[in-house]
Formats: sequence, C-alpha cells, structure tokens
Amino acid sequence: MGEVKVPADKLWGAQTERSRNNFKIGAPASMPLEVVYGFAYLKKAAAYTNCELGVLPEDKRDLIAKACDEILEGKHDDQFPLVIWQTGSGTQSNMNVNEVVANRAHQLAGKKIGEGEKALQPNDDVNKSQSSNDTFPTGMHIAAYKMVVEQTIPGVKQLRDTLAKKSKEFNNVVKIGRTHLMDATPLTLGQEFSGYVSQLDHGLKALNNTLDHLSELALGGTAVGTGLNTPNGYAVKVAEYIAKFTELPFQSALNKFEALAAHDAFVETHGALKQLAVSLNKIANDIRLMASGPRSGIGEIIIPANEPGSSIMPGKVNPTQCEALTMVCAQVMGNDVAISVGGTQGHYELNVFKPMMAANLLQSARLIGDACVSFDLHCAQGIEPNHGRIKQLLDNSLMLVTALNTKIGYYKAAEIAQKAHEDGTTLKQAAVSLGYLTEKEFDEWVKPEDMVGSLK
Amino acid sequence: MGEVKVPADKLWGAQTERSRNNFKIGAPASMPLEVVYGFAYLKKAAAYTNCELGVLPEDKRDLIAKACDEILEGKHDDQFPLVIWQTGSGTQSNMNVNEVVANRAHQLAGKKIGEGEKALQPNDDVNKSQSSNDTFPTGMHIAAYKMVVEQTIPGVKQLRDTLAKKSKEFNNVVKIGRTHLMDATPLTLGQEFSGYVSQLDHGLKALNNTLDHLSELALGGTAVGTGLNTPNGYAVKVAEYIAKFTELPFQSALNKFEALAAHDAFVETHGALKQLAVSLNKIANDIRLMASGPRSGIGEIIIPANEPGSSIMPGKVNPTQCEALTMVCAQVMGNDVAISVGGTQGHYELNVFKPMMAANLLQSARLIGDACVSFDLHCAQGIEPNHGRIKQLLDNSLMLVTALNTKIGYYKAAEIAQKAHEDGTTLKQAAVSLGYLTEKEFDEWVKPEDMVGSLK
Amino acid sequence: MGEVKVPADKLWGAQTERSRNNFKIGAPASMPLEVVYGFAYLKKAAAYTNCELGVLPEDKRDLIAKACDEILEGKHDDQFPLVIWQTGSGTQSNMNVNEVVANRAHQLAGKKIGEGEKALQPNDDVNKSQSSNDTFPTGMHIAAYKMVVEQTIPGVKQLRDTLAKKSKEFNNVVKIGRTHLMDATPLTLGQEFSGYVSQLDHGLKALNNTLDHLSELALGGTAVGTGLNTPNGYAVKVAEYIAKFTELPFQSALNKFEALAAHDAFVETHGALKQLAVSLNKIANDIRLMASGPRSGIGEIIIPANEPGSSIMPGKVNPTQCEALTMVCAQVMGNDVAISVGGTQGHYELNVFKPMMAANLLQSARLIGDACVSFDLHCAQGIEPNHGRIKQLLDNSLMLVTALNTKIGYYKAAEIAQKAHEDGTTLKQAAVSLGYLTEKEFDEWVKPEDMVGSLK
Amino acid sequence: MGEVKVPADKLWGAQTERSRNNFKIGAPASMPLEVVYGFAYLKKAAAYTNCELGVLPEDKRDLIAKACDEILEGKHDDQFPLVIWQTGSGTQSNMNVNEVVANRAHQLAGKKIGEGEKALQPNDDVNKSQSSNDTFPTGMHIAAYKMVVEQTIPGVKQLRDTLAKKSKEFNNVVKIGRTHLMDATPLTLGQEFSGYVSQLDHGLKALNNTLDHLSELALGGTAVGTGLNTPNGYAVKVAEYIAKFTELPFQSALNKFEALAAHDAFVETHGALKQLAVSLNKIANDIRLMASGPRSGIGEIIIPANEPGSSIMPGKVNPTQCEALTMVCAQVMGNDVAISVGGTQGHYELNVFKPMMAANLLQSARLIGDACVSFDLHCAQGIEPNHGRIKQLLDNSLMLVTALNTKIGYYKAAEIAQKAHEDGTTLKQAAVSLGYLTEKEFDEWVKPEDMVGSLK
Repeated sequence: MGEVKVPADKLWGAQTERSRNNFKIGAPASMPLEVVYGFAYLKKAAAYTNCELGVLPEDKRDLIAKACDEILEGKHDDQFPLVIWQTGSGTQSNMNVNEVVANRAHQLAGKKIGEGEKALQPNDDVNKSQSSNDTFPTGMHIAAYKMVVEQTIPGVKQLRDTLAKKSKEFNNVVKIGRTHLMDATPLTLGQEFSGYVSQLDHGLKALNNTLDHLSELALGGTAVGTGLNTPNGYAVKVAEYIAKFTELPFQSALNKFEALAAHDAFVETHGALKQLAVSLNKIANDIRLMASGPRSGIGEIIIPANEPGSSIMPGKVNPTQCEALTMVCAQVMGNDVAISVGGTQGHYELNVFKPMMAANLLQSARLIGDACVSFDLHCAQGIEPNHGRIKQLLDNSLMLVTALNTKIGYYKAAEIAQKAHEDGTTLKQAAVSLGYLTEKEFDEWVKPEDMVGSLK
Repeated sequence: MGEVKVPADKLWGAQTERSRNNFKIGAPASMPLEVVYGFAYLKKAAAYTNCELGVLPEDKRDLIAKACDEILEGKHDDQFPLVIWQTGSGTQSNMNVNEVVANRAHQLAGKKIGEGEKALQPNDDVNKSQSSNDTFPTGMHIAAYKMVVEQTIPGVKQLRDTLAKKSKEFNNVVKIGRTHLMDATPLTLGQEFSGYVSQLDHGLKALNNTLDHLSELALGGTAVGTGLNTPNGYAVKVAEYIAKFTELPFQSALNKFEALAAHDAFVETHGALKQLAVSLNKIANDIRLMASGPRSGIGEIIIPANEPGSSIMPGKVNPTQCEALTMVCAQVMGNDVAISVGGTQGHYELNVFKPMMAANLLQSARLIGDACVSFDLHCAQGIEPNHGRIKQLLDNSLMLVTALNTKIGYYKAAEIAQKAHEDGTTLKQAAVSLGYLTEKEFDEWVKPEDMVGSLK
Repeated sequence: MGEVKVPADKLWGAQTERSRNNFKIGAPASMPLEVVYGFAYLKKAAAYTNCELGVLPEDKRDLIAKACDEILEGKHDDQFPLVIWQTGSGTQSNMNVNEVVANRAHQLAGKKIGEGEKALQPNDDVNKSQSSNDTFPTGMHIAAYKMVVEQTIPGVKQLRDTLAKKSKEFNNVVKIGRTHLMDATPLTLGQEFSGYVSQLDHGLKALNNTLDHLSELALGGTAVGTGLNTPNGYAVKVAEYIAKFTELPFQSALNKFEALAAHDAFVETHGALKQLAVSLNKIANDIRLMASGPRSGIGEIIIPANEPGSSIMPGKVNPTQCEALTMVCAQVMGNDVAISVGGTQGHYELNVFKPMMAANLLQSARLIGDACVSFDLHCAQGIEPNHGRIKQLLDNSLMLVTALNTKIGYYKAAEIAQKAHEDGTTLKQAAVSLGYLTEKEFDEWVKPEDMVGSLK
Repeated sequence: MGEVKVPADKLWGAQTERSRNNFKIGAPASMPLEVVYGFAYLKKAAAYTNCELGVLPEDKRDLIAKACDEILEGKHDDQFPLVIWQTGSGTQSNMNVNEVVANRAHQLAGKKIGEGEKALQPNDDVNKSQSSNDTFPTGMHIAAYKMVVEQTIPGVKQLRDTLAKKSKEFNNVVKIGRTHLMDATPLTLGQEFSGYVSQLDHGLKALNNTLDHLSELALGGTAVGTGLNTPNGYAVKVAEYIAKFTELPFQSALNKFEALAAHDAFVETHGALKQLAVSLNKIANDIRLMASGPRSGIGEIIIPANEPGSSIMPGKVNPTQCEALTMVCAQVMGNDVAISVGGTQGHYELNVFKPMMAANLLQSARLIGDACVSFDLHCAQGIEPNHGRIKQLLDNSLMLVTALNTKIGYYKAAEIAQKAHEDGTTLKQAAVSLGYLTEKEFDEWVKPEDMVGSLK
C-alpha cells in the first residue's frame, strides 16, 4: 500500500495518516473526542485485565494506563485527526488510539519517537485481547452513557425542576384554556405547566429505561463475537475495570454477537432522546405562543429580554431560547432517522455504521442537555405571568357562560353567549341586558376559579 | 409446494391463492387498485405490441384487451385480494392480474373456468414478453403518474387559485406583521397570502420537474433489464401504446437496469410531494393561528363554521380543515422516509421494496390532492378578514412608531414607543402627551398603508 | 350550518354525516376500527361509572352497555364511515360513536329511529362526563395497548422462540464469520442466530418498558384537563372499569393536562416498535444473504420454497418473507417520523394530530406482529443449514490460518496465507508445499471448531 | 440588559458577545463559515447598491467592501464564534458580521477599536437597507448554492464519469444477474454499471432542477417582506451585485414574503441531495456485495486495497470507501428530516429554523461531494473485474438453461436444470448425461453473451 509519512511532531502513526489521506470527507477531526476518551478508558481497563490475567507485564500496563490518563486529561486532543466518515467499524480510530498510546508511552519511557526499541507495540500490547470490532462499540457505549448521564439527564432535570417550581407558583393563576387554538374553559397557569413537568418526567423515565441496554459492553467479543484470542474471564473482568474507572455501572454484554453486529442499544437510547425532543418542542412552542405580542399577540406570560428584539420597539422580546431549543428538537428528530437507518444495515457479524451512529447520538445527547440548561437559565427561570392580560382575556371570554348552565339552564346561557358574541360585549353585559340575571348574580355565579377543578 | 384450492367464484388462480395464504399481514387486499389498473393498461399494451410484432395472434390480443378494459372499468375490483406486504418485486400481483385476465378471457370466450382448453395461458399469453420485474415498476409508474396529474396537481392548483384570488381581494387590508411570533412592521393580508401562493407555485413547479423521470417505464427490460425474450422494438412500442391508452406522455426508460434495480423516480416525485406538504403545513398553521379566538386569540380572519365547535359557545369555530391538512402533511413526511429507506435497498438487478414504495407514494399523492380540495372548499374559499380586529391590533401596535423616524428623529420616536409601552397607551396618546407632535400630525404621518411597500 | 340528511338505514346521525361530507380525504372509513372498539369500552365504562356515582340511571347504563357490547362483537362495523383526516381531536369519531350507541339503544328499547322519545341522548347520556378531548386519547390508548399486547408482542415472541430453537439446533454448525461482508474468523451458525434472539429480547424488553405510559388514560380530564363536569372520583373509577372490561392494567393518567395536550406515550411506544423494525431488518437481511444462490450466492442456509421463484430454474427460492418483513420495517420507520412530527405539534391544552398518530401506531403494531408470524411460519421454522456449502466455504477460507500462530509463529502463518491467496489453493496445500508442517499436523492444528470460543 | 465585556483582541462587539453567553449549546463556533462568507458577499453588494442609489457615501462603501473581501479571503475566520443554536432568524450572526465589518473597517481607516469616531456604524452603515430577516436567508442561499455547484455537483460528476468509463470497459464482461439476491439470467458488468450511471444522471438532473428556486434571494424584503426602508430598485440591483461578485446566477426572489417566512427552496434542494444519497447507497451496497470475499463471498470484482483489512489475512480488502459513503447517505437521510421539520414551522412572516436548516444542507452538500470524490479516487477508479470468478459463477449457474428452450423445448430444458440442481453438477454435464444434446451442441447453443440483449 505504499509508504506513508507522518509529521514528526505527531503522536499518531502510519495507520492514522493513511486514513487521513484516504478519507477527506467533511471537516477534519470530526470523530467526537468523547469516543476517543471512551477508548482511553477501555484501553486502560484492557491493560489492567490483561495484566491480571497474566498476558501483559506490569510495566506495560502502567505505561498504557499513564498514556490513557493523559488522554483523558485532554492533553492530546489534537492527536486524533480522523473523521467520522471512515471505515464503518471505526477501525482506524482504534488504530489512532493504539498509535498515540504507544508513541506517548515511548516518550514516557524516556525515548524519542522513532528511536530505540518500541516501549509498546500498538497492535500487540495496546490492542491486546481486543479487535476494532469490539473496541469501537465499547468506546461508543462509554461515550454515550457518560454523555447521557452527565449532560442530558442533568440538563433536562434542571429545566424540569424550574417548570415544577413555576407550576406551583402559578397554581392560582386562572386563565383561559385553549383547544384547537380556540378559547375553551379555564384552567390555571400552574396546571398548564404541570403538563410540561409530566411530559419531562415521562421522558426522563423513558431515557432511564434505556440505560441498561446501553451499559452493555462488546469488549471481549474480539473479531466476530466469539472472543477469540482473549484469556479466560477477560470479558467480565474488563467490564468491571471500565465500571471502576468511569464510576458508571457498565457490564459485559450478554450476547457479544449482537453487540458487534447490531447497535439497537443506540437506536433505543436515541429513541428516548427523540421523545424528549418531541416533548421539549411542545413546551417551547407553547411558551412562545403565550409570550407573543407585546400588543398584538397572546401576551399571557412575560419571558426575559436577553437581547434587543428590535432597535426601536420596546417590549419586542423575541423568544430566542424557544427558537434555539426547537431547532435542537428538529435536529434530534433528523438524527433519529440517521441512527435508525444505520441500525438496520448490519450485515452478518458486523454493523459498519458505527462512527455515524456514535456521532449522531452524542450530538443529540449534548444538544438536548445544553439547550435545556440554556433555556432554563435564560428563559424558564424568568417566566412571569402577565396578570393583567390573563385577567382581560379570561373576563372577555365567552366560555365562562358554562358556569350559568346550572343556574339558569342551558338554553338561556347559550342565548347570553350568542348575544355577547353578536354584539361584541362581555357576557355580563349581555346577561344583564337580556334580564336573565343581575350584575351581582353574575359576579357571584361566574367564578372562573371554581371551574378549574381540583386536579393539579 | 402442495396443492392449492381456489374458491370457485373467483377469477384468480393458484398463484394468487398461495400468496393470500402465505402473506397474512395487515388488512387484506391492501395492494392499491391503482397499481392493478396500471397493470391492466400495460397488459393491454403488451398484447397490442406482441400482436403487432407477430408473437401473439389477434384473437388473443382482443381477449386480453377486453378483460383489461373491464378491469379498468372497475368491474373486477374484488378479484385482487393481495396485500402490499408480499414479495418485494410484486410478482404475485403480476400473477394475480395474469390469472384474472386469463380466466376472465376464458369466460369472455364463452367457456366455464376450469373447463375446456384455456383461451389464454396466464404466463405464456398474458405475461408474454414480460417479467414481474419490469411489469410491476411499470404498473406503479403508471399509477403514480396518473394520481399525481389527475389528483394531486389539480387539487393543489385549486387551492392555489383560491389563495391567489384571496390575495388580490385582501390587497389593501393592512395588518400588523409578525416575526418570531412578535409584533413587527405592517403588511397587507394580501401580501401574506401572496407568500402562500408563491410557495405552492414553487411546489407545483418542483412536482412537475419530477414527471419526466416518472414517465419512464421499465417495460421491455424483462427479468434483469436486458430485455431477454422480447421481440425487436418491443420496449419503445409498448411504451407508445401505454401512452396512447392512458393519454399520458409515458416513454420507455432510457436505462432498464436502473428501472428495475432502483426507484429513484419515486424518491424524486415523493420528494416534491413532501415539499408540498411542508408548504401546506406552513399555510394551514398560519391560517389557524390567524383565526384563533374568538375572543382570546388573534382573530384576524374568520374561517367558515362547518361543524359546531362547541355546543354552547358561539364563535368557537375549530380549524378542522387545517387539522386534517396538517395531519396529512405529517403523514407525507413519514411516507417520505419509508420511500427513501426502500429506495436505498435495491440489490444487484432488483429493488424489492416496490409494493411498499408504490403504496406510500399513492397515498401521499391522493391525500395531498384530496386534502387541498377539502381545505379549499370548506375553508380557504370562505376566509374573510375580521376588519375590526385587524384594525384594532394594527392601531394598538407600537411598531408604527418607525414611521416617525424621518419626521422627529429616531430618539424621540423611540421615546414615544417606550412611554406607550410603559403606560399601556396608544402611540398617539404617548406622542401627544410628550408634546412631540399633534394628534393631527400623528394621523397624517403615521399611515400604516404607506409602510407596506410596493411589493405585492 | 344547514340541514344534513342521513341515509335511513344507518345508525349514525347528523354530526357523522356532516363529517363525511366535509372530509372527503383518502379512502372512506379509514379510521381504524380498533379505535372505535376502544370507544366502545370507554363508553360502557363511563356509563357504569356515571351510574355508580349517581348521575345516570341504571336503565340508560344498561342500554349503553348493550349497544357497546354489540359494537365490540363487530356487529356494527359498517356504521363508522369516518376518515382519519378529520378534526385532529377526533371529535367527529366520538360523535359517531355517541350517535350509533344512542340510535342502537333506541332500537334495543324497541323503537324505530326517528320515532318516539329518544331512549338516549348522544351528548347528554352517551357522552356524559366526557369530552372528545379526553375520550379520543382514551380510545386510542386502549386500541394501541391491546394491539401491542395481543398482536405485536406474541408475534415477535413466536419468531424469537423459533430463532432460539434454531440457535440451539445450529450450536455446532461451524461456519465462516464475516465482517465488512468479508471473510473473517469462524463462529457457529447457532451463535449467529443467538445474536438475533438477543436483539429481539432487548426489543421486547424495550417495548414492555413503554407499556406503563401507554396504560395511562386521559378519561376524566374532559375539555381541557381540569375534569370540569365530572362527578367526584370519576377519573379513577372509570379507569378501573376499563381495566376490568378489557382485562388489561389501565390506570387513570397521573396528569390529565399532558394526557390531552401531548401524546408522548405514543411517541414512546412507537419508538420501541421502530427499534424492533430495525432489529428485524437486520435479521431478515442476514437470512436472505445467507440463503442467496442457489449457485452463485452464499447459500449457507436453505429456506422454505413457498412459491415458484422461477418457472424454469429449480432452487430459485426467492426470500419473499424477508422481503415482506423488510418492507414492513421501512414502513414502520416512516410511521415513526409521522408520529414524532404529530407529537411535536400540540398547542396549549390539546394535541390535534390524534387520529393520524393512532392510525400509524396501530398499523405499525399490527404489521410487525403479523409479519413476524408470517416470517416465522413460512421462513424461520423451515431454515436448515446447507452443511456441504458451509463446510466448503469454511475449509476454503484463509482466515483459519490464525490457528497456526501459536504453532509456527505469526510470520510463517502469514506466509502460508499469502501463498494460498496468490496460488488460489487451500491453506493446507500452501502450508505443506512450503514445508512448514505436514498434512496431518494441519488437520490436527487447524480445527475451526476450536476457534469459536465458549460464548454461545 | 446589562453591560457586556468583549475581549480586547476581538473584532466582534456586544451583540455577538451577548449571544455567546446566552447560547452555550454544543460546540462553539458551529455556525458554518460558508454562511459567514455568504454574508460577506451580500454586505458588500448592499454597500455597492446603497452607494449607487445614493444612500451610502463611496468611502463607506469601500471600507465595507474591503472588510468583506478580507473575510472572504479567510483572514477573519476566528471572529465568528457563534453557534447554530441561537435565535432562529440568525439575527445574531448578522450582527456578528456587522460588528466585525465595522470594527475591521475602523482599523482599515487607521484607527484603534474603541477610539475615535466610528468609521462605520454596524447597524446604520453595514446593515443599511437590510434586516436580519432578509440577510440571513440571503446568506444561506448564497452559501448553499455555492456549495452545491462547487462541491456537490463536481464530486458526483467525477464519480459518475468514472462509472461511465468502467461501464464501457466492462461492456463485454458477461456475468450472472441476480434478482431477489438469487441467481437470474445474465447481463454484462457494463450493463450493471450503466444502471449506476443512469441513477446519478437522473440525480444530477434533479439537483439542477432545484437551483432556480435556490438562486432566489430574499434581500430587499427587510423586516417582513415589504421592503420597508429600502431605496427604490434596491432588491433587483443588490441581487445583480451578488451575482456579479459570486459569478453565479442569483436573482431577486419573486416573492419576498415567501423568501422570509418559508424555506421551501432548502427543502427542495435537500430533497434532491437525499435522492442522490439514496442512489449512492444502492451503488455502494452493490459494489461491496460484489467485492465480498475473498473466498467465501461473491468476489466478482476487485476493489483497491487502501488499508490493511486484516493483519494476517491477505485479500481481506474491506470496502471502507463504501462504508464511508453509506454512512454519509444515512446522515443525509436524517438531515432531510431535520430540514423538512424546520421547513414546516414558519409562523406568519418568519421562519425561525434558518441556522439549523442552513447547517444541515451545507453538511449534506459537502459530505456528498467529498464522499463521491473519495469513493472515486480510492475505490471506483480501481475497480477491476475478477474474470475467473465471474466466469466460474456464470458457468455454474442454472439460469443459462433458458437458452435451450428454443432448441429442445421448455420441458426438457427444465428437466436438465432439475437434474443439475439435484446432482450438484453443471448444466452441461446434466444435459449430456440425459442424452438431450451433445457437449458440442451445448457449447454452441448456451452462450451467455447472446443472452444479454442489445440494451446498454
């Protein structure tokens, strides 16, 4: 395949350089660093396991571990130049990590790259008891699991908690309800927000349900899932080391053939991320509709003014956080299709859409987490009811007439509503002018706060 | 494969019956009748071509043609019991048609099914110079092309023309503009509707652009695209007959290998249908937002009241046509993914997602056409401006202050807007109370109709 | 809104007829009957609850229950002519059910429709303590839950059990593994199948995880979620009755505002269906690749010949069940997008994409269940290894050379492989001709069955 | 909104900094540089137009033009730190460009940032006759159009031309055809490749069809499409300048209301990109299937060995370029959904999913272009037929028996095939052993090259 020259100041080697040359697709270095860090965890865990099982000496173990620790500290981020759009097994990124670990270990052993006997062999030592086919899915599971539990879930929870707090605060703010976008019977603003909280609670539960599958690691399956060339007990032990190093409950996959040939765990977890996107889209849409105005919209709530919405018009507070969040939701819906398509296409013993699936899930998980935090800090926390406007819209509404059914009967009530609608008056005016009840009776009988039930 | 018994009163034969038994998936007879009709056109055209090229006698030609004509008249709709979810080449539906044509021809020849020498052999005569592999794609192209030009395009055009008429009618109805859902500078309702017309014009153009590819017919490629077992000149001539019988500009596919192994023409046409769905969704959403209320929404337009929206509240006119239309749009967006996934998965000489792709495109094409007509008749034609409400929202708006920039300078104008926003007054009140201009000057200078440009 | 005439022989009334006229979109009566049956359960449960809580007399309860039971027996399937593409709340289908129940009850009470005092009022009696806004989501949850547990899960399990049985049967059938579609180290056919089983086990678990959310019923929320116009204790009790009548663990939704305004439960359950589609697609693809041939493909397994694949070529057994199944998978992937798009678009107190979401989920759930059963009966159960071919491909493979690494060293092993590749010989021939080992040694050392590990 | 501090060494200003702080979502600086360059073109064009129409002095025009030219030369790439996930109008990126141009112009005028009278005002001068609402869609159209014509189309064409060349080269390589993945009648390898060429030709035509819509520019519509605050003739002239500066046929949008409120042009163009992805997926899949092996797969073609596929097994050439390409295809299919979802969601006068739609289209357009070039260079150009294997599979095939139909009749031919299938022999052996023809006759009559037709 010809010779390959690698820049002298780089830790990577020929395999990496060859991939750089052969896959000039999109921006360079697009392979997510989180996957690289996932590799660093697993290479270290493999070294410990290999050592414990007697197939790697301690000094090599320690060199590998030291180099991996440095990678995890972010010291070598610029040594991983490969792209997502490489071989679908991610082999070349595995080799990239092997080469960087080996070369860095060489330096750590006090030598110069290219000089002296190699402290570590990339394939024989760093990759011992491994194959690209089981390391890449392991690295992507580690990366995805970490992202979900460290970014997505805390971000969504933070927003969920703010909405729950607002729901309680707004518990007595009675407002007009709307169905089909049309005026309907009243509810409280707190009840409206409780629906959002319930959506996110269900979404978080759904996401949590997927973590068990995601915690299963392919490592130990090697080339085709049979575990060829691994010492006895390797698969279970290496998963234990990974769990220990990451402090996350990873476990050896129950079936290694599935773990290499299919990535349904990614389809499953991303399905839950997509569900959250669907929920967040509904919430953000409602909030921007309710905040619309300031004069010619709905205007029931006030959201924080973070940027000048118009250079001349005060009160033009664009719902920019809603916009960022809904764009994220659309992206996640798209990513879900990319991941699903990739998931369908495993052949025999290997699915070769791994890097694409990893990149999409990591993007979705991060965007949802970040966007929820941003939305929380710069929008949700500052939401306030526009009490005057809420009352105005409520009092003008014709739907309150339903409160009169039990007092004057359905038909007279309907007549009142009809008259108010035709004349463009309030219900009270119409009721009094028709002589069906007095102003005082109206005020006594038509109390929106009695129409919102005890459901919270 | 064992014996198969077919009910005595049926025109179909063993192949059809076997498929019925082997594919009990979803509702029976889900294969769209439009595809069956497409087959009827092509079987008749093949018979004429075979006869003209000397490989089929005239009496057989006429029997086939007669049976096909009856199918096209809808006389045998209940003789096609197969489902979409059969073999992906649609072979069994081809055989279903062959069997029905042959058996019906037998009857037309004055015989009883199962008795006497067969008037026609399903495979040798009805299927002569054909293969499932080229007939099914031909049938689905005929069905799709017809649906698009007979249902989709006229339906969309009908709605487009109504919107254009409304745009002209509403040409002078100045209203508040909204960006980010927030109040912005004014435009006319006619301008707003002109945007919808422009969307549909572009969508129709895009759809028309796809028809050339869709008009290409696979017939003549037979089993793998080489045209094995077809007489000289068959492919071109059979396409001419199909064009003649359907009165549509069908042509023989330039490349038969593509025509069997890929259905990018379906991906292409459905892409344009999806674009129309995207446009229609925007339009329907705008209309229901503008019609929202009657009291606590936007209420700038009035849409027809087709059903009681509420048993007690007058004026609660639910935008049900918008809802039906946007549900259709969501379906079309889903169908686009199904078709695209199917389109990616051809292998070697044959794509075996044909029936699924056909069914989805036909559904989308019909739903868009029908939904546009329904939306036109029961909503768009009856849209009227709510002049009072439009004027109220416009006059209350703070954005009109921009008209004063050139009269009193930017800073005083902004001060007026700021004061009106804080005091909750109109701009005029604020302007006069600040002493920057008189009421008369305000009325002269602040004319929304001068702010809507000459762009129509 | 003008008068409406209903055919005399129909049980439906004016509201239904008006919807028929206003929504001529797609095929008639497309609203799934399963949703109608869901309504029948809930109408009966509501009648029992209303009676128990003192707001409906027993005779009316019994009339409603009797009519609903008849609907559930399938006696009135032709009385529900409405389409999916109606109002997005499904109001008109609720009214359709109300009208049919009321009219049928009228008949059951011994009267003629249109004559005498109405035995039941559609709105006041049949719809008592209900609103379209909480009945339709309740009906669709009942329909979906039933379909999933009665069709989808049993169907998938049936296939899963067959694959597990085959996995055990094929436990010792050593074959060549393939990664990147290229020859790799061996595994057993049973191991390969165990991966499929594991995929379906995970998919079933994921689907089961969604059932809790799906079991939550909106009933009791009425118009906007506040439960206006329901007697005390209604929501919980009506869910208990539904659970009793359906014998399924339905429960009252924790938050009624979510239950009306969002359908994330549908997004969640369909996400799991989509995951199953992804898994099934992989499995079906593998099986058709392995069965390809008979001469010029892979040919490692033999699948049942259900239909003549070619009129002249024996052994051309088209993998038609794989094709039907993968078409179903593509459809489910499309439906997932339609459902997700619908899920994002609730506004305020109501999501108005209900009928579309219901129809898509029901279709996916049924298609997956049916297609798995079909695939199981007509393909999976009959899969047999083609032992001769498997052995031939295994023995010819160059990957077995890895077994020699520990005997003669990596470099000599590689040399053997290289020679065999260049000369087009077997490994054994190359090994012996190079003089590195004897034929006997080769047979002793190169045993594929020793390379497949103990992982099963 | 409080004070904002900007790092002293930056050219951006307060609006940019505020956006950085408010939108910490995903990786920094994710807004594609191509959009920034699109802005640079339009800012320069606006300056020229404003000057020509008498509303901007020449010295300001030249300062703006100079700063924009520098941006286009890539000198200020690090001055655009904003993310995709900001306000959906892209306002903040417009302001980012305005600030950078103004500050850079200040430097070009020989001053220090923050000192002396501002050479240019970001809003009054750089943004003159513009609004975010018309500049961002203009910038994204310029970026997208350039990417499509400069990267996508040339990349696809390069691959298409190679495939056409191969099709010609392989014109006489007769091979077994395959339908349903099963052996079928023969065709030439050149015919197979001609199908790929035809797919790409149709795809390129479809993509070209979308360029007209994409060439329409929103500029001149300003805030809501009415063109408020633009001098007479501005819209047309500014489009002419953009056409001149980019040397691409841009034109002023026919309808500015559509151009702000909807991005159907993006939906349309991306639909064509998705169609290409569907085609490319089919092609890449076929090639990796045909190249599979080396021993236990199909092995009809040989693809270049770019990386070691296995450290020990010669001939294991993983189809890595196919894998990269099909991953790109899956991504594009996902992006299509994201763009479509964004496209549906415009409200009133503005679609606020602009940055997300821009980023997705640019990614797809670039990935397809790059991946086609990579696939061409490292795979397609090097594809060679494996003549021996092709002949072996062809000669062994049973499908050739169809050539005997006209010589010895259908039934004897079928008998031969049946015998060969059962005995596992070649057709010739079976034919001779049955005594139906001599070896010589067989060789004369069964000539695959006569079965591939004259269709190319």
